[in-house]
Amino acid sequence: MSKGRLEAFSDGVLAIIITIMVLELKVPHGTEMADLQPLFPIFVSYLLSFVYIGIYWNNHHHMLHAASKVTGGILWANQHLLFWLSLVPFVTAWMGENHFAPTPVALYGVVLFMAACAYFILARALARHHGPDSRIARAIGEDFKGRISVGIYAIAILLAFYLPAAAGALYALVAIMWLVPDRRIEKVLAE
Amino acid sequence: MSKGRLEAFSDGVLAIIITIMVLELKVPHGTEMADLQPLFPIFVSYLLSFVYIGIYWNNHHHMLHAASKVTGGILWANQHLLFWLSLVPFVTAWMGENHFAPTPVALYGVVLFMAACAYFILARALARHHGPDSRIARAIGEDFKGRISVGIYAIAILLAFYLPAAAGALYALVAIMWLVPDRRIEKVLAE
Amino acid sequence: MSKGRLEAFSDGVLAIIITIMVLELKVPHGTEMADLQPLFPIFVSYLLSFVYIGIYWNNHHHMLHAASKVTGGILWANQHLLFWLSLVPFVTAWMGENHFAPTPVALYGVVLFMAACAYFILARALARHHGPDSRIARAIGEDFKGRISVGIYAIAILLAFYLPAAAGALYALVAIMWLVPDRRIEKVLAE
Amino acid sequence: MSKGRLEAFSDGVLAIIITIMVLELKVPHGTEMADLQPLFPIFVSYLLSFVYIGIYWNNHHHMLHAASKVTGGILWANQHLLFWLSLVPFVTAWMGENHFAPTPVALYGVVLFMAACAYFILARALARHHGPDSRIARAIGEDFKGRISVGIYAIAILLAFYLPAAAGALYALVAIMWLVPDRRIEKVLAE
Repeated sequence: MSKGRLEAFSDGVLAIIITIMVLELKVPHGTEMADLQPLFPIFVSYLLSFVYIGIYWNNHHHMLHAASKVTGGILWANQHLLFWLSLVPFVTAWMGENHFAPTPVALYGVVLFMAACAYFILARALARHHGPDSRIARAIGEDFKGRISVGIYAIAILLAFYLPAAAGALYALVAIMWLVPDRRIEKVLAE
Repeated sequence: MSKGRLEAFSDGVLAIIITIMVLELKVPHGTEMADLQPLFPIFVSYLLSFVYIGIYWNNHHHMLHAASKVTGGILWANQHLLFWLSLVPFVTAWMGENHFAPTPVALYGVVLFMAACAYFILARALARHHGPDSRIARAIGEDFKGRISVGIYAIAILLAFYLPAAAGALYALVAIMWLVPDRRIEKVLAE
Repeated sequence: MSKGRLEAFSDGVLAIIITIMVLELKVPHGTEMADLQPLFPIFVSYLLSFVYIGIYWNNHHHMLHAASKVTGGILWANQHLLFWLSLVPFVTAWMGENHFAPTPVALYGVVLFMAACAYFILARALARHHGPDSRIARAIGEDFKGRISVGIYAIAILLAFYLPAAAGALYALVAIMWLVPDRRIEKVLAE
Repeated sequence: MSKGRLEAFSDGVLAIIITIMVLELKVPHGTEMADLQPLFPIFVSYLLSFVYIGIYWNNHHHMLHAASKVTGGILWANQHLLFWLSLVPFVTAWMGENHFAPTPVALYGVVLFMAACAYFILARALARHHGPDSRIARAIGEDFKGRISVGIYAIAILLAFYLPAAAGALYALVAIMWLVPDRRIEKVLAE
């Protein structure tokens, strides 16, 4: 079974997710710079989610590039990942429109947490299918960053109820961790 | 005539259908977990339709993979399938927002029924074009699952007016039947 | 210059146009079959436009399939076509929500007319670039159907102000003319 | 790393951006030609942005066509460009709905300015990765048009607060400059 359409479909869904989020930036009625001010938290949450979807697309691209074949199970593991990512526009809007209130910030973390788990399941399914010595199994490896991310999300979800701003900062931290070029941070983490 | 663009166009339409459905999950005004409660039936109907569109994409992927060429008639059979699937976001929203009321649940079934018939027509057109001994004709085969699905949809549509919850359960049952790996269930059904 | 991305971009835009039109089918508040009745004209205009975008995709697919290379001018001729088609959701909604009132029906025809002209310009640009003896020039040929369509649109636009229903019927007639398999109708028209 | 998915994802995002902008053309309640009049500035801003996204797609297509490989840094430079372009629907709607009022016109220019800078960064990253003698480095060259565009945007942003119409005219001028076939204008600019 070829991987081309899996990539094409995932690209389509991710491209739409990343773009429909901007529809939440509702055009203000006034024409002054001050009229944009209420949009600021919505813009910040949009920026965060834009970066996250970009990271997922980037990692998905790399992982599938190393894959050579897909099975029915892998298609569904991918679909499962897309399901959680499809909820990102909803939690982004809820968090942004409510100025990073505790529950929305926690739910944003839950969706990130579930998406990270879904990514993990997809990676395992791909590694298992290609065998432990395959290029993709070695490329996925121990997946330090993935494990650390899931841990930080869990902490941030709990933290959100007391210090939502700190939880938001942790989400941003994870995003930055993924933006930093891979090799360097993997060395750091591997030590 | 190549099948590449048929796949690309179908991927695009399915990716958009699956993603715009999430726009029905309107951001609530409050910031408490309880404010999400009214969204629960909408979420359930979203989840059901997400799985259904995923199943259609999955089966479409497999069927076209076995095809080697397409004709004008096949393009239109495909367009016909996409038309019924494009109505899924509408019936999903109507059903979810009305807490699975009888008529919306029945109409949801009608759209699933018509989409299943459209898929059947597309499969026949592909099998006819490639010949009875072709790989695709054998892959489609008797299509037990497709026939059973259509039958269950018909029962569920009638049932919806008396027991809408039972009709919803039947829709979920058909989805689960398609999610279970093919070979096993086909063996069961073939016996 | 390769034609692959031109096809991919056009597929994407057409897939989105065809799918966002369904967003105009706003979910009714009631849960009875009668509550769907006001949506009927919107559904009819959606169906008509769905078929039209399908025809454009189909013809675009065939035409580009015969092309081997594209230029900057051809990219812009294609963009011009996509511009007019991007207005289809707007005129579809205006026509449907106003129960096929004269001016909206006329404007719908204007957009179809301009799209047909844009398609004609794109076809000429492709034929010129590939030479008069090329496969694509012969495939486009005299383009009887295209010329007749433009003529019918012009008549329908004028007719819309007096008999909007008749204009709508003419739009449907052109769509049916394009749905009928090519070879047969071309023979008829060529006689 | 292959460039195929980078192109596919960018095509998807650009196709969605160009198409969702039309959703701002809200269907008027009346059915007369006069009811469309208030939509005129929104239509003009839509047309301008449609042309701009078309130009970006066109140039992106050309640039990537000359590229042979991409890196993680290039993926993120591309993502950065898509981020600024994703804000185009928002500023287009704000500018159009407010009849080209000073601040919205200036902000439209800011987004164009940032997108042009992001494109410049992407071009540099591609040229650096392929080497100074590569086909892509020579294709990008001095990028006269890009530099002039950035300068005109800067002037237009300032001008917007005093003469918003003139700023709008400058945006249109830059668009026309990019629409004119490349070779001729590059000769003119190179002299």
